[in-house]
Amino acid sequence: MKFVASFCLTSMLAFSALAHEAHSEVKPEDAKDYRQGVFQTLKWNIGGLVAMAKNPDIFDKDHANLLAQRLHLSGGMILEGFTDDSDMVQGSDAKLEIWDDRPGFEAAVNNYLEKAGLLVDAVAKAESPAAYMEQVKELGGSCKACHKKYRN
Amino acid sequence: MKFVASFCLTSMLAFSALAHEAHSEVKPEDAKDYRQGVFQTLKWNIGGLVAMAKNPDIFDKDHANLLAQRLHLSGGMILEGFTDDSDMVQGSDAKLEIWDDRPGFEAAVNNYLEKAGLLVDAVAKAESPAAYMEQVKELGGSCKACHKKYRN
Repeated sequence: MKFVASFCLTSMLAFSALAHEAHSEVKPEDAKDYRQGVFQTLKWNIGGLVAMAKNPDIFDKDHANLLAQRLHLSGGMILEGFTDDSDMVQGSDAKLEIWDDRPGFEAAVNNYLEKAGLLVDAVAKAESPAAYMEQVKELGGSCKACHKKYRN
Repeated sequence: MKFVASFCLTSMLAFSALAHEAHSEVKPEDAKDYRQGVFQTLKWNIGGLVAMAKNPDIFDKDHANLLAQRLHLSGGMILEGFTDDSDMVQGSDAKLEIWDDRPGFEAAVNNYLEKAGLLVDAVAKAESPAAYMEQVKELGGSCKACHKKYRN
């Protein structure tokens, strides 16, 4: 089951980073609300894994697997929210470098996705939160690196 | 692959509706931001399926499958965001009935999850957007029914 779940998610993510026609006609404000919503979900689900590490009594393997899988699948939503015309939208912390340096930004997001995939594997094998926290830190590092370059 | 993906998601969702210790100590404001973020992701991904129905030239089967799977998996995040002490938080449209009638609210969310599961199956079999739109309408109906009772 663990392998199967990981395989499924990887397959589903393979095409998720594509800028897609289906989202090409949305308003800049809606794209901004979406990407900010995606980041809220990432923050929450990372938080759940960290909470289990701080208090191992509440460690629940199934729930930890679910949180890691969400971090992977929802990470595939990030790029879609940065639509071409949503660079100047109000209420966004996104730097213009995202649009000026698209390959660099995509590489940073793909780095997150790679780390999230490794986290899925780490949690699947973990018998305690301590066993996956190194990979949570790696994931957090990929967030911070991207924020530093691309977020005000 | 279709069956396997559907099976994975169903298995992952089986425990997702549980109120969980890992999220029991978050601030009410953070819970509110999370649940509003989750709803943004649902709106976006439903929107992508509807956009393909309005313009079948952009129909992409793989992407449609991904959107449906996101609607299912992210739907499992809804209940977690309505933490016990986040009933009076500022900037929320959530009615107090959510906390006064928890079983009713959970049933409404579970209705969404059931419809989302059926949408995953419908999209997996669809050769055109027309073939899944009935199920998108069913899903939208589950959203509206919940909003009517539990959202200001």
